[in-house]
Amino acid sequence: MAQKKIGKQTVKFQNPPSIISTASIVGPKEGEGPLKEYFDIILEDDLYDQDSWEKAESKMLEDAMKMAIKNAKLLEEQIEYILAGDLLNQIISSSFAVRQLQRPYFGLYGACSTMTESLSLGSMIVDGGFADNVLCATSSHFCTAERQYRFPLELGNQRPFTSQWTVTGAGAAVISANGSGPYITHVTTGKIVDPGIKDVNNMGAAMAPAAADTIIQHFEDTGFNVDDYDLIITGDLSGIGKPIAEELILTKGIDISTIYKDCGIEIFDGKRQDTHAGGSGCGCSASVFAGYLYKELKKGKYNRILLVSTGALHSPVSANQGESIPGIAHAVTISNVIS
Amino acid sequence: MAQKKIGKQTVKFQNPPSIISTASIVGPKEGEGPLKEYFDIILEDDLYDQDSWEKAESKMLEDAMKMAIKNAKLLEEQIEYILAGDLLNQIISSSFAVRQLQRPYFGLYGACSTMTESLSLGSMIVDGGFADNVLCATSSHFCTAERQYRFPLELGNQRPFTSQWTVTGAGAAVISANGSGPYITHVTTGKIVDPGIKDVNNMGAAMAPAAADTIIQHFEDTGFNVDDYDLIITGDLSGIGKPIAEELILTKGIDISTIYKDCGIEIFDGKRQDTHAGGSGCGCSASVFAGYLYKELKKGKYNRILLVSTGALHSPVSANQGESIPGIAHAVTISNVIS
Repeated sequence: MAQKKIGKQTVKFQNPPSIISTASIVGPKEGEGPLKEYFDIILEDDLYDQDSWEKAESKMLEDAMKMAIKNAKLLEEQIEYILAGDLLNQIISSSFAVRQLQRPYFGLYGACSTMTESLSLGSMIVDGGFADNVLCATSSHFCTAERQYRFPLELGNQRPFTSQWTVTGAGAAVISANGSGPYITHVTTGKIVDPGIKDVNNMGAAMAPAAADTIIQHFEDTGFNVDDYDLIITGDLSGIGKPIAEELILTKGIDISTIYKDCGIEIFDGKRQDTHAGGSGCGCSASVFAGYLYKELKKGKYNRILLVSTGALHSPVSANQGESIPGIAHAVTISNVIS
Repeated sequence: MAQKKIGKQTVKFQNPPSIISTASIVGPKEGEGPLKEYFDIILEDDLYDQDSWEKAESKMLEDAMKMAIKNAKLLEEQIEYILAGDLLNQIISSSFAVRQLQRPYFGLYGACSTMTESLSLGSMIVDGGFADNVLCATSSHFCTAERQYRFPLELGNQRPFTSQWTVTGAGAAVISANGSGPYITHVTTGKIVDPGIKDVNNMGAAMAPAAADTIIQHFEDTGFNVDDYDLIITGDLSGIGKPIAEELILTKGIDISTIYKDCGIEIFDGKRQDTHAGGSGCGCSASVFAGYLYKELKKGKYNRILLVSTGALHSPVSANQGESIPGIAHAVTISNVIS
């Protein structure tokens, strides 16, 4: 068996890569939420001085990437790979952002699971001895996602209470072979789990079984107990999906309830901010990770967390052709100590 | 410097992964082209017994993946990661195909560069000690791509002579830590190069500078000469882009003309088949690699090749918003001997 593989879907790094910097940028609404103190930049206007929302999203991602590099005290030339993706068709936010950086680039698509997809592959690249510094990044934007996936905002459609609010935000992190943590010590890569849900306004329920599957597998593969973590946090299951995931995990005798949160619930004050089931989008777990989680790890509030970004792998075309919504979730252990 | 990195953008594997099997499926038109003898399955009808072209593309990819696993004499459970992507919005062809396999999955988007993107990351995962068997795959379909990127086929629009014909095809390969070659020995990962071209019917010209950039960098990083290769083959520059790339590379004093081919030119008989500048799409380099190139490597006609899949990272939205077409190209050295 491959030397760094443990169990069925997990790898344990021999030289765990260090997250040496992050950067986060969010929109005005996210900047009024409970985590506002943690973001590096809060936009005053979600057009960000660009002439389209798509260009604004790309600019937000570009600036987050550049800021993460600066925060790492590196030059752009020292970044050996960029791993990035987003929700837009042909991941144009990422490609046009990366165009400004001129570094070797692997484009990813994992829907809202992209942040941990990039951290997983980025860590493998560093631990595998292929690079010293890798930049991982992703973004989403409420206005670009709404008009691509649902309706033009100008229509003012009503949204059902199961629907989620796509986070306008970007997060970036530099992973390095050199550094003093927090470290990425384990990666559990998800399989597609499709519970057969066809309601595109209920993505939390569609993704919850995938999150549960990955978290259960993570415990099985690593032999960790719930006590080994200070926090388990999913990407964007929000108000509908989080209790489903928690219950599915409990059926295997694992009670995560005391340490389990969801980025989509944390980023907004749902009632005050009228975000229905909660936040979603690649930028949700990306900005919560790069803002809140990373900073609280550095401060020592958390010492070991399991970050599990969650993705719904459908498209408007697949939904219109009667397909259900496949879910996926990738888990990454981030720890201040190497175990 | 990271131990397996050579030069600026290249890695050299310590234990080069072996390509232990491939599989290729193409549409009826590709099955009438010059490479027809090499494909494993030629569809009689491009709907492939499905009720939409999108579902047909996904089925084609699923079947190619399953066939590659079978050809490798492995069980599905022995595949530790699937790395796949395609051209459709939210890469639905890949996600719905992978849903049928229940294996850990990283979704990729590199437009038509996806085959070598997946081979690059897949090789790093194997050489890095994270897995013994990884499945790399991609697809494209003329009918899904036309209606997504350009016009509904029913309109019967005329196509300019610079335009290319998206290949209906899927290719898959199993990369393994165990095997007797052909081996993936080096990977040179591309940067985005954007020559400012805005004509979405001239993607060959838009991608050619990226291909040239990666090939020049590959020679610089590795110290290889043109004589070290039996064949250099780009993905889908076709009739317009190939001579541009060749000339750009010549400006650096490197004359690849005697051993340089392009998958988009090889797959169709342009004049007889009315494909204008030539073939394109993720499935172009994927099926030519999995069909023709792999089989000729096994037979010893070629002993060492450089496969350079090329991608145009635009979208209809970015084009409509006035953006140019960013290009990217990833190069992979495939060799019967480990150098």
